[in-house]
Amino acid sequence: MTATSTLSRDASAITAPTQYIETRLETYAYRRFGGGAAPPLVFLQHFTGTLDNWDPAVTDQLAGSREVVLFESAGVGRSTGEVPTTIAAMAAHLLAFTDALGLTEIDLLGFSLGGMVAQKVALDRPSLVRKMLLVGTAPAGGEDIMHLEKPELRKILEDPSLSGYQVLVKLFFTPSESSQLAGQAFAARLGARTEDREPLSGPKVAQAQIAAFRAWEHVDSDGGRFAELRRIAQPCLVVNGILDTMIPVRNSYLLAEHLPSATLLIYPDAGHGSLFQYHDSFVQHATLFLDS
Amino acid sequence: MTATSTLSRDASAITAPTQYIETRLETYAYRRFGGGAAPPLVFLQHFTGTLDNWDPAVTDQLAGSREVVLFESAGVGRSTGEVPTTIAAMAAHLLAFTDALGLTEIDLLGFSLGGMVAQKVALDRPSLVRKMLLVGTAPAGGEDIMHLEKPELRKILEDPSLSGYQVLVKLFFTPSESSQLAGQAFAARLGARTEDREPLSGPKVAQAQIAAFRAWEHVDSDGGRFAELRRIAQPCLVVNGILDTMIPVRNSYLLAEHLPSATLLIYPDAGHGSLFQYHDSFVQHATLFLDS
Repeated sequence: MTATSTLSRDASAITAPTQYIETRLETYAYRRFGGGAAPPLVFLQHFTGTLDNWDPAVTDQLAGSREVVLFESAGVGRSTGEVPTTIAAMAAHLLAFTDALGLTEIDLLGFSLGGMVAQKVALDRPSLVRKMLLVGTAPAGGEDIMHLEKPELRKILEDPSLSGYQVLVKLFFTPSESSQLAGQAFAARLGARTEDREPLSGPKVAQAQIAAFRAWEHVDSDGGRFAELRRIAQPCLVVNGILDTMIPVRNSYLLAEHLPSATLLIYPDAGHGSLFQYHDSFVQHATLFLDS
Repeated sequence: MTATSTLSRDASAITAPTQYIETRLETYAYRRFGGGAAPPLVFLQHFTGTLDNWDPAVTDQLAGSREVVLFESAGVGRSTGEVPTTIAAMAAHLLAFTDALGLTEIDLLGFSLGGMVAQKVALDRPSLVRKMLLVGTAPAGGEDIMHLEKPELRKILEDPSLSGYQVLVKLFFTPSESSQLAGQAFAARLGARTEDREPLSGPKVAQAQIAAFRAWEHVDSDGGRFAELRRIAQPCLVVNGILDTMIPVRNSYLLAEHLPSATLLIYPDAGHGSLFQYHDSFVQHATLFLDS
């Protein structure tokens, strides 16, 4: 373990070494690679995901023109501490991390749970965040957020024939042949990293994160539903699949309708993992958005 | 007037000569310019709009890599005949036009009313249409389509201080300072064509087109609401402004949810004229979509 931050310009999510940094809160695992003049793009991960769950087809392409920083929050993978049960506490971990790295201006890519943390970071420290990519996520007070007890999700989660990445292929992609093929390609890309991998998340991580989803769903700010979104002035690109079963697309509509400066991009025949299914298009759009 | 089709490679919407073609139905006015290997991109116009209502910032940029064909439907501008009171009859005029020009594969950019005609053309002659850009439009059976009697629209339409393009600046753009500035730039671009202009549309055009909107709003196909959209297999890019007051954005959501292959792109702080407000971004996204 080393606390120095090594920028590996030629590395990718497949080969970037896991690094560690001690902070005022916890010691966080992270990976950092790529390079360019743009602010670093910090990735905030989905429910139970670790550093190993980032698709190299997304991270490595984006790292061609900017630094990419994959962040492991408290209690996940080899980061120390406990997984918080609120989005606000997760945002505090991200701020401890960026402060320790000395980052003063970043872009955020928040996927699912990570998109909620990104919104909270932008509210708590607006000066830090230049632009945000909010993918497959929901506003505080959103609807039908990660209800794993729904029959269509339970059927997948309780299927004894599915294990490892095959669960993600069913959860993140639609039943269509082309989406499932894209899902298998995604799984193969995740499997390409064979060394220096993170431990898988267990039930303790899942339970705490589910508690955070439940709290996020029921938040109602003082000024009325979604009033806090009006305070997020950063340009945002809100992305989702039209058939997302985990965080339905209407949550992306709500983000676009209430954030002052959000462009909405929705992919056809795609579920929660639209950014992985359409990785080439997603990277093109993300790059246009970040560079404009 | 000439019935030959002259491809003016270096022309733009500002200078392209108006041409005319006799067909099995009517004689249509049109303009055709640009060039490239891609199928021609045929533009279908909005309520009461003529050939002069296409923004050169959109048409000319797209004409850099493909032929652009601006179509004037029956009874509008200098095209002969009567404006039909149904979208289906408008689609028949487009087919008479493309048949007379000998076009066998086209892309369509349908804005507002034109987006409805585009959907009908794709249903009636699927083999003709490769891809569609559906901007500020609605499916058959959509909601709150062009109700000019609504207070927020009537206020603009009955404002004696507004005339000419200033009405469009209020109707197509939001009240924000930046949107209104973009509106004024749009009006200036429309005014850049000073010769060979079309006559303005009068109340007869408006009344017939409003009748077509009312019929479109109430259509219910045999297979249930929006069932016909499932039959449109063409890749579509559905575009709108989040604050469209003329054809609200939820109609774009409905298109994305029911078309099998539609990507949805929604712009912030934009109204019905989002493609004109964000013309650079729109052209970039349209080009990515058409060329992918």
